[in-house]
Amino acid sequence: MSVTETSTERRNGVDVETLFATIGVVRDQPALARFQFRSSHEWVSGTHNRGTISGFYGAGQEHLHAAPTTIGADHPAVLVGADHGPTPAELLLNALGACLMSGLANIAAARGIDLKGVTATVEGDIDLRGILGIDPEVRNGYEGIRVVFHVDGAAEAEKLAALVSQSRDRSAVFDVVTNGTPVSVDVATA
Amino acid sequence: MSVTETSTERRNGVDVETLFATIGVVRDQPALARFQFRSSHEWVSGTHNRGTISGFYGAGQEHLHAAPTTIGADHPAVLVGADHGPTPAELLLNALGACLMSGLANIAAARGIDLKGVTATVEGDIDLRGILGIDPEVRNGYEGIRVVFHVDGAAEAEKLAALVSQSRDRSAVFDVVTNGTPVSVDVATA
Repeated sequence: MSVTETSTERRNGVDVETLFATIGVVRDQPALARFQFRSSHEWVSGTHNRGTISGFYGAGQEHLHAAPTTIGADHPAVLVGADHGPTPAELLLNALGACLMSGLANIAAARGIDLKGVTATVEGDIDLRGILGIDPEVRNGYEGIRVVFHVDGAAEAEKLAALVSQSRDRSAVFDVVTNGTPVSVDVATA
Repeated sequence: MSVTETSTERRNGVDVETLFATIGVVRDQPALARFQFRSSHEWVSGTHNRGTISGFYGAGQEHLHAAPTTIGADHPAVLVGADHGPTPAELLLNALGACLMSGLANIAAARGIDLKGVTATVEGDIDLRGILGIDPEVRNGYEGIRVVFHVDGAAEAEKLAALVSQSRDRSAVFDVVTNGTPVSVDVATA
């Protein structure tokens, strides 16, 4: 194979060579691993609001995504909203599912496993007496969240299952959702 | 005012009468407060995947949102992705900002405060040596997240700031992100 062919070799859509090269560069220059992600929000009306994701810092410089993404959020009618979008609690489940899914193809590619298809469902149980302020003994957030994966690929079932557990063990969102992270909430005076 | 006018009275786009009536009904029938939210995910290629939010259970029955919402996620080029959408770690920040924003207009309406405009920014710092598996001492998730609100409304600054702190104190996503929640991740065998 020519150099060009080698450098574009992909498995599961993953450029494995570049992935390993990137990890090697960051290992040698840990400052490149410092990232800052951001989201900006504007209130629309009632529980309806919009969040936009566009720029971030990482690998020593500012970046812009290829396109900004704006996500609307609202409460459904049963929760006295206008249902212009998912609830923020659903957006949290979406972030978790996306994170577990994103790592999986990289891990499979690194292990030489071809994936055919992967789906997952995320479910969270919540007692809204917390956020409605009805019972101080009830927490605001989810009591528990369940994620179930279906993985179809060219390996035995236990090797496919190991992809999911490795993705979980390297997931930023899974870590935050299970272990918590300090969050400051302030109001600008201007 | 006629009954019709009273029942459609709104402040900040919030139907305050229905909001208080809903809280009263749930107080009397706690089983109605049990909700289950969901997100379903499919892998596309590499780190690119899509999550869809459509149905949920709550107030004693199944519901469908007015429209399903599909959110794409990916890694940017600097993280060896194709940048078909935000990273899942950014989607987490978006869920947090949306949740803090959603509660705010309800609280303001309940307190008789007219809002003119509200914006917020969310920033999260993360050292990617965690998820890249370079340093086991570095956590996968955010070290810390900062949220800053700008609130413009018809009240003194301290009353506007109190809206933000009350929204934080009743936020499902803030609770999960700061305190953590049990998450199970399984693989279906079929």
